[in-house]
Amino acid sequence: MGNFLKKKNNRRNFLKKTALLSTAAAFSTFIPKKIKAAKSYNWKMVTTWPKNFPGLGTCAEIFAKMVNEGSDGKMNITVFGSGEIVPAFEAMDAVSSGAIEMGHGGPYYWKGKVAAAQYLSAIPFGLTPQEQNSWFEKGGGQEIADKIYEKMGCKFFVCGNTGPQMGGWYNKEIKTIEDYQGLKMRAPGLGGEVIKAAGGTVVNIHGGELLTSIQSGAIDALEWVGPYNDLAFGIHKAAKYYYYPGWHEPAAILDCFINLKKWNSLPNNLKKIIALSAKAATQQMTNEMIAGNNMALKTLLNKHGVKVKPFPDEVLKKLAILSNKVLNKLSSSDELSKKVYKSIIKFRNDSIKRSENQKKFLETRMKYVNYEK
Amino acid sequence: MGNFLKKKNNRRNFLKKTALLSTAAAFSTFIPKKIKAAKSYNWKMVTTWPKNFPGLGTCAEIFAKMVNEGSDGKMNITVFGSGEIVPAFEAMDAVSSGAIEMGHGGPYYWKGKVAAAQYLSAIPFGLTPQEQNSWFEKGGGQEIADKIYEKMGCKFFVCGNTGPQMGGWYNKEIKTIEDYQGLKMRAPGLGGEVIKAAGGTVVNIHGGELLTSIQSGAIDALEWVGPYNDLAFGIHKAAKYYYYPGWHEPAAILDCFINLKKWNSLPNNLKKIIALSAKAATQQMTNEMIAGNNMALKTLLNKHGVKVKPFPDEVLKKLAILSNKVLNKLSSSDELSKKVYKSIIKFRNDSIKRSENQKKFLETRMKYVNYEK
Repeated sequence: MGNFLKKKNNRRNFLKKTALLSTAAAFSTFIPKKIKAAKSYNWKMVTTWPKNFPGLGTCAEIFAKMVNEGSDGKMNITVFGSGEIVPAFEAMDAVSSGAIEMGHGGPYYWKGKVAAAQYLSAIPFGLTPQEQNSWFEKGGGQEIADKIYEKMGCKFFVCGNTGPQMGGWYNKEIKTIEDYQGLKMRAPGLGGEVIKAAGGTVVNIHGGELLTSIQSGAIDALEWVGPYNDLAFGIHKAAKYYYYPGWHEPAAILDCFINLKKWNSLPNNLKKIIALSAKAATQQMTNEMIAGNNMALKTLLNKHGVKVKPFPDEVLKKLAILSNKVLNKLSSSDELSKKVYKSIIKFRNDSIKRSENQKKFLETRMKYVNYEK
Repeated sequence: MGNFLKKKNNRRNFLKKTALLSTAAAFSTFIPKKIKAAKSYNWKMVTTWPKNFPGLGTCAEIFAKMVNEGSDGKMNITVFGSGEIVPAFEAMDAVSSGAIEMGHGGPYYWKGKVAAAQYLSAIPFGLTPQEQNSWFEKGGGQEIADKIYEKMGCKFFVCGNTGPQMGGWYNKEIKTIEDYQGLKMRAPGLGGEVIKAAGGTVVNIHGGELLTSIQSGAIDALEWVGPYNDLAFGIHKAAKYYYYPGWHEPAAILDCFINLKKWNSLPNNLKKIIALSAKAATQQMTNEMIAGNNMALKTLLNKHGVKVKPFPDEVLKKLAILSNKVLNKLSSSDELSKKVYKSIIKFRNDSIKRSENQKKFLETRMKYVNYEK
């Protein structure tokens, strides 16, 4: 039935195209080459986020708008929220198969298909947002990511960055590393692997169930994104402590993935517009997250009296050592994982000394600038 | 004579256009509206940087390439280095008058025309690069900047960011704030005003003369950009200490300014392409600066044995207090300066608490991650 409909549609399209071509042929000699090639592309983009979800879903919309406007309507991308036409985690299958032209999500969602993908999202104790962007552009990241996505039949672009995440919401105080023993926590990605190694039980819970899960005591702790997104979910109503730093996700990129055949068939100009828009959308999302987090953190502190506190240094030290062990082992499972992990760690290590300047600046500003807290 | 030539050229153009129009009229009924409107724009961009100067001049080239490719050749921007057709600091006059369509430089170069412009570049103890980008997009910065540039007959875009700068090269150790008494230093912008207030003598020296000036003892200290640019100038050959943090310029944006009449005459699609490209070029320059600074700092430390050290906390504290005094006074000289300064300070103060997460992350990484220094 599906196939029959498809064939019928194809035939109708074919007839339409033939009619257009014969009309066009009548005065084709008068029309310069460039104009003859003009054609519109109406593409769908499926996402792993609810429609217009703050920061994440809005980034997909911003990207689509940039492409639509930048291409002067030559390409029109329609964005679909998770479940609208494809369930969130089937977005990659839909794009790989060519049923849908493009998608927007996070690389670690696809670790079941290609294990190496998860390292592209975020690495515990890894890169800051700007270092991560720089690694993709100047540290060989784009080339490695393209290899990883090629295995899924897609072209890859960085398209968004959450900025530094917070360390998560806890109903139990973390005083020593032993406090992770038996802790039930919602913690995704590679950070979750480190928490498991510290003795925690890691559970997967969808965004919509976060509040009820911590309210009911089904979990003791959870990590979502940062103040801007966490406030929207009302997690402060049921959790005592809001910890930092977000050692597990010091930055997390979002991905734009495009069916490779459809990508290859695009005219060069539209390829450029897509690359430009992905880069500009990444910047714009970072801008939105900073302003949003500023305001939300103030609300959490001043209106809701949330206890924001740092993890103890001894805990961070042990998590860093553990993280090194866990990720070294995990990444040695296949060549591509090994390669991407090694490349990120090299860039991270090259960045540490330079970032001392930034750390000292932030410290100075906190200490010596007078401001209303 | 100039006027005569202009008229003659105009007449020639008029004749050309008429000829084209009459040919076009013959089959204009066959050509859809959109195609009739197609027109190429060959624009010049004058810059305040030597051609292809690392990070700064290359950012102008990246931007122009993005526009050229993004517009599919509808707009072709040719970039000129400083002095090629217009001296560096006459770039704004050339664009204001409409002689040249667009320019690329730094806002504080135009403080002689509109005092408020200098606050857009950088503010001592102000915003980090990402906060600065966020202020322009979400904190009202773009609107204020457009007002400032409108006074110079231009449209404004952020187009590049140097990232956090270093504190500068010193041949005298800075142990107390008194060490600034009588110090001869090359320090531009608002940071220079603070150093003056601390008792220093601030001198203006062009990039090309930095090394000889510090070698001859004509100056005791200088601030340029950061490792990537400073290494290229060989400043380490003649200076003892390389201080951080860059309290005076925690980030510095570059500007793209476009003659307002020419901007207004552009079709909407080209306006979008320019805005997109400026945003993407800002991101790409930041990426280049991070990777470049990583490598250059390593070379300075490991190959040239440069002494990299932090300013003492007591000095930073006094500079922060002084900075507050100096800038409050300076910005009260006119309404626009007051407005822009107040707006940035508000965004800075709103950012401090949120940035504690980032500071703690960088500190943790420095302390607990094993890496080769």
